[in-house]
Amino acid sequence: MCVPGCHEAVKHHLSRRGLFRGAAAISTAAAFAATAQPDTARAQATSFSRVVDLTHTLSPSFPTFTGEPYLKVQQRMFLDQDGYNVFEWTLFEHVGTHLDAPVHFAHNAPSADALAATTLVVPLAVIDVTAQAEADPDYRILPADIHGWESANGPLPDNACVAMNSGWDRHVATEKFRNMDRQGVMHFPGFHSDTAELLIAERRVRGIAVDTLSLDHGPSKDFSTHATWLPSGRWGLECVANLGQCPPKGATIVVGGPKIQDATGGPSRVFALV
Amino acid sequence: MCVPGCHEAVKHHLSRRGLFRGAAAISTAAAFAATAQPDTARAQATSFSRVVDLTHTLSPSFPTFTGEPYLKVQQRMFLDQDGYNVFEWTLFEHVGTHLDAPVHFAHNAPSADALAATTLVVPLAVIDVTAQAEADPDYRILPADIHGWESANGPLPDNACVAMNSGWDRHVATEKFRNMDRQGVMHFPGFHSDTAELLIAERRVRGIAVDTLSLDHGPSKDFSTHATWLPSGRWGLECVANLGQCPPKGATIVVGGPKIQDATGGPSRVFALV
Repeated sequence: MCVPGCHEAVKHHLSRRGLFRGAAAISTAAAFAATAQPDTARAQATSFSRVVDLTHTLSPSFPTFTGEPYLKVQQRMFLDQDGYNVFEWTLFEHVGTHLDAPVHFAHNAPSADALAATTLVVPLAVIDVTAQAEADPDYRILPADIHGWESANGPLPDNACVAMNSGWDRHVATEKFRNMDRQGVMHFPGFHSDTAELLIAERRVRGIAVDTLSLDHGPSKDFSTHATWLPSGRWGLECVANLGQCPPKGATIVVGGPKIQDATGGPSRVFALV
Repeated sequence: MCVPGCHEAVKHHLSRRGLFRGAAAISTAAAFAATAQPDTARAQATSFSRVVDLTHTLSPSFPTFTGEPYLKVQQRMFLDQDGYNVFEWTLFEHVGTHLDAPVHFAHNAPSADALAATTLVVPLAVIDVTAQAEADPDYRILPADIHGWESANGPLPDNACVAMNSGWDRHVATEKFRNMDRQGVMHFPGFHSDTAELLIAERRVRGIAVDTLSLDHGPSKDFSTHATWLPSGRWGLECVANLGQCPPKGATIVVGGPKIQDATGGPSRVFALV
């Protein structure tokens, strides 16, 4: 998720938050995570009658955070010669509609394969900030947006994924998705780190999701939302599609994250059950 | 899915079935597939209260069809140096718990990204052949097994995934998973091609799933089940885990297949909603 030089900013941010505070957050997260069984997980009884695909189609030209291609694809086996078709993929994990696992930004934190099924099939809360993002591409989801959603919909459900619908998914095929200015600064919406802190301290939320390239908004220099959220043991989703087809509450998100040993995240198939 | 030399056998099989018959099957499949909407898909109202993870953890040492490693993982970014952790994966698509898309064995057939959400979140029918597989590692699911399941559970639901639970998932960490004899022939259960033909012609089934390395049983030389099933426009799942934790009927399978352009399949996160 970082551009060159960002690691100093992230280190500074982590240092500012303090080792003790980070350790406390991870300890809280571990207690929260311990409610999950590893393979067979109980969920609240829920029902659905419609499936929405929240996944963009990924190709080598899919926009990336640094602008470099993160996926290469090469056909290795050919039906006419070999009896079957197979491709080989080479990819940088954080490409396409993808998961950020806690270990992406923390030592000794869960990798993608360590996230139990019960933490990946959870209630979906969609916060609509399309109007705010239209007016200000650098918009960040604030604590007030959480309070606003709860005023309309009731308390955030336990284990929820809180998703930002900024409408940015419609720009995925154009330069507007990265929206880089002449100074090389990107402009797209994200979550404010104050909101991450609120959700960690005062709610029981499993994940946050954005329809943009980063949990942090485009101009972020210190990735404070990543550095606050992921070390707490919770996950993120980036480049999510079609959130506008989901209701604000009542749907279930299914995060088909990679179950690859030690993965820091990776391309995921994500559905909403409505 | 093929060992060296198998492509001639596959070609022979396809030739024996006849071009006209193959074209007719694809035409039928296209009509069936046309009932699906591409992004937002209606499903029957369904409910669940438990999630079962049907996915094995994938690592470079995961057993493969040819015995060669199909996955390489290399850490590219390091938290202490770069501010975040990221790995690069290089993989042959058909590794781990994975999808076989129709294009794996057919020209002009759907790739993984072209399979609509409505075809990937479907009723799960589990056929228990653990006793048969224990007695005969080369066991194949026969039409009689389909009839037996239906006698006990009623007709296969429309859009179902029919899954073989042979108990083979428990061997995944040992040589027994490939179960190769001194002549280099593998021995594990699969589907008989007659069963594939029955399901195509007389049922409305979306996919078949196995807890072994191949839709065909281990000693197959012509991959007749692959070559019958996939060109019909339907999908397969291989190396599925934990089917023994699912009921024979009533669950929903969520196939988190890769949405990578042109993919012939690939590692998937698969859940059962029970």
